Amino acid sequence: MADEVILLDGYVSMFGMRVRVALAEKGIKYEYREEDMRNKSPLLLKMNPIHKKIPVLIHNGKPVCESLIIVQYIDEVWKDKAPLLPSDPYQRAQARFWADFIDKKLYDAGKKIWTTKGEEQEAANKEFIEVLKVLEGELGDKPYFMGERFGFLDIALITFYSWFHAYETLGNFSIEAECPKLISWAKRCLQKESVSKSLADQKKVYEFVVEMKKRLGVE
Amino acid sequence: MADEVILLDGYVSMFGMRVRVALAEKGIKYEYREEDMRNKSPLLLKMNPIHKKIPVLIHNGKPVCESLIIVQYIDEVWKDKAPLLPSDPYQRAQARFWADFIDKKLYDAGKKIWTTKGEEQEAANKEFIEVLKVLEGELGDKPYFMGERFGFLDIALITFYSWFHAYETLGNFSIEAECPKLISWAKRCLQKESVSKSLADQKKVYEFVVEMKKRLGVE
Repeated sequence: MADEVILLDGYVSMFGMRVRVALAEKGIKYEYREEDMRNKSPLLLKMNPIHKKIPVLIHNGKPVCESLIIVQYIDEVWKDKAPLLPSDPYQRAQARFWADFIDKKLYDAGKKIWTTKGEEQEAANKEFIEVLKVLEGELGDKPYFMGERFGFLDIALITFYSWFHAYETLGNFSIEAECPKLISWAKRCLQKESVSKSLADQKKVYEFVVEMKKRLGVE
Repeated sequence: MADEVILLDGYVSMFGMRVRVALAEKGIKYEYREEDMRNKSPLLLKMNPIHKKIPVLIHNGKPVCESLIIVQYIDEVWKDKAPLLPSDPYQRAQARFWADFIDKKLYDAGKKIWTTKGEEQEAANKEFIEVLKVLEGELGDKPYFMGERFGFLDIALITFYSWFHAYETLGNFSIEAECPKLISWAKRCLQKESVSKSLADQKKVYEFVVEMKKRLGVE
């Protein structure tokens, strides 16, 4: 029996994009279902009753939630092709540590850029760049975060690239001026079809953010 | 060459206790070093420069940080004895999901019980019990969270047991009255020496919390 794989997702979600990249790396066919987060589907509420968030991967009827957990699940189920996590336990722990760091620090700093104004936004810009610089330091001169191979940690971070134009425009700074190596790395990742076809268009993300700002009254 | 394993830890930390239980389950000898969080050691700052938090496991000179990542690392390095994560990918994803849920929801709700007063504390009590009830529902009638075997998710949760007396006394409620099955599960876990010898004494945690409340001026 062929696997039935359904992804409940949102086009602009950096978390959803992670799952799309991982599925593309593994060459897995799946049904994509865009969720309207203002009018969540009964299926989403049933499959992720705890957090009620996308992405949710439904594999043969069973849900897996939380993007980094989904990517690890995909790596463990379809293990014969394109390993995403390193095989060495220490490298695996490092990959998990930095992916967790991205979720704890980068997302929040990025969100503050477009949900605040004035001094608060200035502080958010600064924090965002600082977090990116820490990540750039961790990248160093390696082609990918864990070395020669594109993998888990690259997936965890590259999906934020779709948001870079929005962050830069609304925060009025240049990521490339601050973190040139990180931008080189992003462009390297984008040469992979699994990435370029999975990432949301930067202009569409910007339009989404502008619309969200209007809705939140932060203009 | 024998492994050199050092644990930078804090006696009352539910996150540190997770690592102690995992090391005990695997029968790994290690050097325990209690950190003074008001006067962090140069070694802690060197080994965890990003978060500057305990626990840190230093294995042959190399640091691993963040308790759930450390427990997975221990499970992957010392894989021949007492497997902690299930072998099935779906079960592994479930274990990771619920451990993540504990970190995102239970810790914060618990902390609010002893750092707030009045209505805010009432809300924290309610939220804490709700989170525990969700976990009790997930446990169901199984002896351990993933079935017949004590493992990763049991470790992620059981260390909160050391704090139960403090939460109950300061929040003025009974966890056993609200979640009897969860307390039966906790007592089952405590029959394991790996757990009973690793968990902090409930009275000492209570004294620590009372002292912290004084320091924070929340009395």
